[in-house]
Amino acid sequence: MNYRMMGKFISRILLVEAVFMLPALLIAVYHGEEKTIFGFLTGMVITLAVALLLYLFCRKAGKGFYAREGLVCVGASWIMMSLLGCLPFYFSREIPRFIDALFETVSGFTTTGASILPEVESMSMGNLYWRSFTHWLGGMGVLVFVLAIGRGREKEGYTMHLLRAESPGPKVEKLVPRMKDTTKILYFLYIFLTILNVIFLLAGRMPLFDAVCTAYGTAGTGGFGIKNDSIAGYSPYLQNVCTVFMLLFGVNFSCYYMLAIRQIKSVFKDEELRFYLGVVFCSILLIAWNVRGLYGTLGETFRHAAFQVASIVTTTGFATTDFDLWPSLSKAILLALMIVGACAGSTGGGFKCGRTLLLIKSLRRNVRQILHPRKVQVVRVNGQMVGEQVLDNTNAYLAAYAFIVVFSFIVISIDGFSPMTNFSAVLACFNNIGPGLESVGPTCNFGDYGLLSKVMLIVDMLAGRLEIFPILILFSRSTWSGR
Amino acid sequence: MNYRMMGKFISRILLVEAVFMLPALLIAVYHGEEKTIFGFLTGMVITLAVALLLYLFCRKAGKGFYAREGLVCVGASWIMMSLLGCLPFYFSREIPRFIDALFETVSGFTTTGASILPEVESMSMGNLYWRSFTHWLGGMGVLVFVLAIGRGREKEGYTMHLLRAESPGPKVEKLVPRMKDTTKILYFLYIFLTILNVIFLLAGRMPLFDAVCTAYGTAGTGGFGIKNDSIAGYSPYLQNVCTVFMLLFGVNFSCYYMLAIRQIKSVFKDEELRFYLGVVFCSILLIAWNVRGLYGTLGETFRHAAFQVASIVTTTGFATTDFDLWPSLSKAILLALMIVGACAGSTGGGFKCGRTLLLIKSLRRNVRQILHPRKVQVVRVNGQMVGEQVLDNTNAYLAAYAFIVVFSFIVISIDGFSPMTNFSAVLACFNNIGPGLESVGPTCNFGDYGLLSKVMLIVDMLAGRLEIFPILILFSRSTWSGR
Repeated sequence: MNYRMMGKFISRILLVEAVFMLPALLIAVYHGEEKTIFGFLTGMVITLAVALLLYLFCRKAGKGFYAREGLVCVGASWIMMSLLGCLPFYFSREIPRFIDALFETVSGFTTTGASILPEVESMSMGNLYWRSFTHWLGGMGVLVFVLAIGRGREKEGYTMHLLRAESPGPKVEKLVPRMKDTTKILYFLYIFLTILNVIFLLAGRMPLFDAVCTAYGTAGTGGFGIKNDSIAGYSPYLQNVCTVFMLLFGVNFSCYYMLAIRQIKSVFKDEELRFYLGVVFCSILLIAWNVRGLYGTLGETFRHAAFQVASIVTTTGFATTDFDLWPSLSKAILLALMIVGACAGSTGGGFKCGRTLLLIKSLRRNVRQILHPRKVQVVRVNGQMVGEQVLDNTNAYLAAYAFIVVFSFIVISIDGFSPMTNFSAVLACFNNIGPGLESVGPTCNFGDYGLLSKVMLIVDMLAGRLEIFPILILFSRSTWSGR
Repeated sequence: MNYRMMGKFISRILLVEAVFMLPALLIAVYHGEEKTIFGFLTGMVITLAVALLLYLFCRKAGKGFYAREGLVCVGASWIMMSLLGCLPFYFSREIPRFIDALFETVSGFTTTGASILPEVESMSMGNLYWRSFTHWLGGMGVLVFVLAIGRGREKEGYTMHLLRAESPGPKVEKLVPRMKDTTKILYFLYIFLTILNVIFLLAGRMPLFDAVCTAYGTAGTGGFGIKNDSIAGYSPYLQNVCTVFMLLFGVNFSCYYMLAIRQIKSVFKDEELRFYLGVVFCSILLIAWNVRGLYGTLGETFRHAAFQVASIVTTTGFATTDFDLWPSLSKAILLALMIVGACAGSTGGGFKCGRTLLLIKSLRRNVRQILHPRKVQVVRVNGQMVGEQVLDNTNAYLAAYAFIVVFSFIVISIDGFSPMTNFSAVLACFNNIGPGLESVGPTCNFGDYGLLSKVMLIVDMLAGRLEIFPILILFSRSTWSGR
């Protein structure tokens, strides 16, 4: 294993992280939040020190960087990022316990939005900003960012191995021939859409700070709010803006690139996009029918239904109403949406629409094969044949997904919460959503879980964001054996 | 599609079913239960009439019987069997609504044991016997029985297609070269173990009727009891006998054949058996630790823990205590056991230990393949290489399993029970267990669900018992199209 190359890369990521703490520090300075200033200064110094040490030790890296190194590197760098990113919360004493600060930070970077805080409005502005900003950073991926701003001396293979490990979806698509240019295009689109979101929020008279933080949470499909009631207190217009932008950020970014280069037809024909919109549309209709009578007008009913569906399917986790009080059918639909998740290649989490589509098609193929054993059957998406390796990986992903859900569910049940609380907590963390049902519903938090459960949920959040294998591989014997 | 051949086969099954109603009729006559006698007479006449009509129409069957015909035939015959098998309950007016009678019968044949009856002790002896006997019939499979007693003119391929569709597990094992002889051996072992079970129960002074009915429920891993409190009222000795026999009936029957022909080593080396026993052992220990203090003595604690674990993992569904009152960890373990289920080739349901083992191994292979992309990796069970087709099918099975669970969960949520009730109801029916948690816990029943939910759960029970594909294929367009 090429540890030095990995160390070198991680040192660059930590450097970027330290630089990104600067805006939050400035906000704290502006508002004169002394403890928070101390928190960020300490955090930045430690992060820089670790980055420097790593750089010094790993300067002379040899060649050879393969899939294994890529996966381990991604897993390790996300863990390092979280361990250091939580320092401002910890040293400012706003989250006095380290495990809680770590939980909150992992929840931020993985764009989960699950919180251990019973209320957030008493938090300092600096910390609130950093909390929301972790969503934005984690949404598109810090590694992608580092690769995008890098000087481009890296080999294509190296970039590819890292991207494949960090990017969500059954396969990594190249928009343009060079992976590096692809990362630049992705970040450009990401920034563009985020700014657009801020503008629309400002147009609805949301204060600038709120608008920026909300846009971070939306863009990364994270879900940390800066109000105790999430988005419920904002005007219907603002809620609708959030609904639309959440859905937009759940779309595969390659669709936007296609739009930008005027290949509009191929966007409309994209099967994953159609599936995603179909799921959203049907869910809104069913839930609106199911919760009729709970709200005053038809408009309000649809607004809440659409918001919650968008929030859950894109795995954001904002809320405008306590859906834990909704009838069972609506809750069942939301639980199913938690699993399905957004499109591959978006900032959303979950199993991904693309994978679900592949599973359905592959299952259909299997049925056809039983019926006509001698006919060769292939799976096609968007008219193109899907390779057996991709189908194989998708199936393996489902198996790993199921094992992790069951295992985590058993582990966190030790704390004695109700089975539905635990089950939804696992789904909410693993799919990077945030709120679950019952004791971890939209009005509650994860603070009461014990140490073991929090560690388990932290692993789940990381595994969910990095699509399991980079984390699974850290626990695999054959990664560390010489073979 | 060779409809005539299928019709002819189904007519034979119905004939056998009508004959099997006879003992229940005689019991009703012996106890002078007039309504029940009427129920069975009507049921038998209608069943015989349908069988006769089918035979007359399908007498002149052409050749050609392939996988498609096998699957459709199995699905159709189980549906027919259930529709006619519920007539005694219906016509005796002991279950006045047809859908309830059908639910109870499907639950019997599929060895689920989920009941719509709030209490069973007021039922007539004839109906109680028939209710338990459906478990025994369904456990090893009625088709297997018909094939075993047939005159042996069928071709090997024909038998194979039917058996493959009805037998549980990732692949059908031949014990001896001819499939027909295999079915005979299986039924011999099944009858032998059932009789052994009855003898052990009688030794504990259980009345003969109770012993026979309990043995039917145990052998088929069904779970219908003849007492309102299931097995709770019987002595500790009898409860322990049930625990042991439930576990025995959860073992792959080929292990018993191996024992019988003195290949004892290969039994001890069987990886699925080891996995199954390991799961059982760990679960008992964990639960006993978790429920410590709820019962008087250590012995009682272990007795209840072992009984419930055996009951759930073998998908039987008997109960000696209300595990819905157990702490969360125990409930989480039981929910996980519901999914894992018993061994392939046993009478138990669920996902099966063998499949779980294959998934784990296949996932491990996948991880190794990511780490070393150029090395060819194979999956081995019991030292033998597992074919890619089997792995493919296992993965497809998981996908189908997941889709059915999610879909059923949403559908039955319409009735407004709590999410955990609905989720556990789906798991309990689909895995052929019986009781779930909360409103469908061991002390409750499925009677309050609406028509749509009952139909959904009936489909789930059949899909679970027949391992999904025979039922899935009934809903597939390409089954019925000419292609």
